Amino acid sequence: MTLNEPVYSDEPTRVRQLVSQFFGDQSGSDVAPDGLDVLLSVGADARDDCAVYDIGSPVTLVVGSDYIRGPKFILHELGLLSDFDIGYYLAAANISDIAAMGATPIGLLSVIRYPHEMDDAGFRQVVAGIHQACTDFGTLNVGGDIGNAERLILSGTALGVCRPGKVLKRSGASPGDLLCVTGACGLLGAAVAYFPQRDTFRRALPVEMEQELLDSWKKPRARVAEGRVLAQKPYATACQDTSDGLKATIEQLMHASGVGFRVNERDVPVDPAVREVAELMKVNPLALTMSASSDFQLAFTIAADDVPACRAEFTASGLDFVVIGEATEDGEAVVVDDNGVRPLPGVAWKHQKSDISLLASGTADA
Amino acid sequence: MTLNEPVYSDEPTRVRQLVSQFFGDQSGSDVAPDGLDVLLSVGADARDDCAVYDIGSPVTLVVGSDYIRGPKFILHELGLLSDFDIGYYLAAANISDIAAMGATPIGLLSVIRYPHEMDDAGFRQVVAGIHQACTDFGTLNVGGDIGNAERLILSGTALGVCRPGKVLKRSGASPGDLLCVTGACGLLGAAVAYFPQRDTFRRALPVEMEQELLDSWKKPRARVAEGRVLAQKPYATACQDTSDGLKATIEQLMHASGVGFRVNERDVPVDPAVREVAELMKVNPLALTMSASSDFQLAFTIAADDVPACRAEFTASGLDFVVIGEATEDGEAVVVDDNGVRPLPGVAWKHQKSDISLLASGTADA
Repeated sequence: MTLNEPVYSDEPTRVRQLVSQFFGDQSGSDVAPDGLDVLLSVGADARDDCAVYDIGSPVTLVVGSDYIRGPKFILHELGLLSDFDIGYYLAAANISDIAAMGATPIGLLSVIRYPHEMDDAGFRQVVAGIHQACTDFGTLNVGGDIGNAERLILSGTALGVCRPGKVLKRSGASPGDLLCVTGACGLLGAAVAYFPQRDTFRRALPVEMEQELLDSWKKPRARVAEGRVLAQKPYATACQDTSDGLKATIEQLMHASGVGFRVNERDVPVDPAVREVAELMKVNPLALTMSASSDFQLAFTIAADDVPACRAEFTASGLDFVVIGEATEDGEAVVVDDNGVRPLPGVAWKHQKSDISLLASGTADA
Repeated sequence: MTLNEPVYSDEPTRVRQLVSQFFGDQSGSDVAPDGLDVLLSVGADARDDCAVYDIGSPVTLVVGSDYIRGPKFILHELGLLSDFDIGYYLAAANISDIAAMGATPIGLLSVIRYPHEMDDAGFRQVVAGIHQACTDFGTLNVGGDIGNAERLILSGTALGVCRPGKVLKRSGASPGDLLCVTGACGLLGAAVAYFPQRDTFRRALPVEMEQELLDSWKKPRARVAEGRVLAQKPYATACQDTSDGLKATIEQLMHASGVGFRVNERDVPVDPAVREVAELMKVNPLALTMSASSDFQLAFTIAADDVPACRAEFTASGLDFVVIGEATEDGEAVVVDDNGVRPLPGVAWKHQKSDISLLASGTADA
């Protein structure tokens, strides 16, 4: 065997030789933020039936699962995202749900099922990506399930903790609360709309803009720091990540809280790359910004009186948010511009019908 | 539309109309056994980013993930297992890992990704199976991820709690401890070996025996009650479920604990149906009993002095276990019969090579 020949080890070997490199030596770690007493007593290194946490003081525990196969992998299939990138994304997507609750991640379980043709080097890259994301977001991959499957399948579960009673639900918004978002949305959706169709557009985007779109997938940031600030007082009355796209997120906050939302078009941040893709697609940039897109921004509501203090804390930590609207009493989500009021534009996430091309075909509100 | 025409709702509709039927109204439940203070404050009914548990007293939390696609679904593809059955199996498989830690399940997160051709009725059956298993094992499906995929994919994560310090690891066996199992192994593997090849054998099994093999898949029992008894003192010094097959389980307990095992062939329970399938396959019944098989028995070690008290508690609860061997100092797993000592027979679970047909081809020890 030459050095560069692909190696296809069986699953116990991959666990022992590849996974252990990244996840060894974690049992015994103090995994919770200051003041909360949570010890990871049995981690991935122990290779037991489960990971084990010893919780010594009252905490609020949050846990959620995200599967990330599907259309969003098209950029991986096109060779634009590496095996490392999709491992990183898997971890970020799951940790984002923890951030959306205002919690601090204490562990990730990752399911990695790979086709026969994925060699040890590719598998190792997936694990390396998961490990890097966990490191970047301050947590550990404490377990999961690996083995083969007909095709690559990635799924995860993240756990987090926060102080008792400080969790951020979707249901707490009241009329009059301001609606905010931690940054521009729609980049990941725009990337999926752009790259597969790149050769059919009348021109390509500038290289830097293409890189920005790709980086939205390669370096997604779960808003853990933002979530922790929002949970402090708690400042946020309701919170959700925008991984279904901004329109769907606003609608879900609306339904959960029993309010309406009035969004000010001019206040919604639109990324220049999203604007450019929208122009190539001949669709409304706001519609593309709000459509199905696996962004990990946080959308949240906050009492107007709390905005100055919350902004000061964000600024002190180098973080930012934008006020884009207001919760109303009327149970509808609308956008307002100089011409009046209309329904939120964009294609909301629905698994069977989340094709962003609907925007261009005119079957979606734009 | 007639009453019987298949319906294919989109994913938000399935969450709202089908999932909610089963998982509504769980937020606010006290989910832990007596004395442990764990409240499910945000359950699946809330449809938030995560499920939320408020933990008011010190607990040990265990969490594990199991993906259940793969060769084991062959009986579903053959039409022998229903959509309900595989939902049930998904939940049982994940809860079994909690049982193996001696913990009590407090929640399940299930990932259900389905192909376009699965209609609402089929999807509903998967969810109903998950719900039934959660009910049977005393827990709740508190969240997860649903949506479509190229083919049916089921994955889960289970959480459990036990009293601080009472968790059952794989690593605690000492030389001299007795090796035990809660029941006969190999049934699920025998079913997978039998049904796809049924027409090639010289005869079929009796109907009742076929039903027993199918029921091993349709009505798997996660050994939650057994695990709780074993964790009480704790009686068990090490414990693992047999979902990789008995041989692999014994080998893993051996490696984790740094001991060896001497198994007495005559003490290993062999189910009559497994014996019959082995005869049809012309393999050693003990080898088939110990080979890759997704059983949910518990294999555990216990100090000899503790056996009478532990057995009394098992009996009082209508439970049973069998002593099949002993931990040794020599770091090898062997089986002993009247003819002497030999390596453990059977094909241990390895994802690339767990094909039970290896038994018949003579490439595995038998």
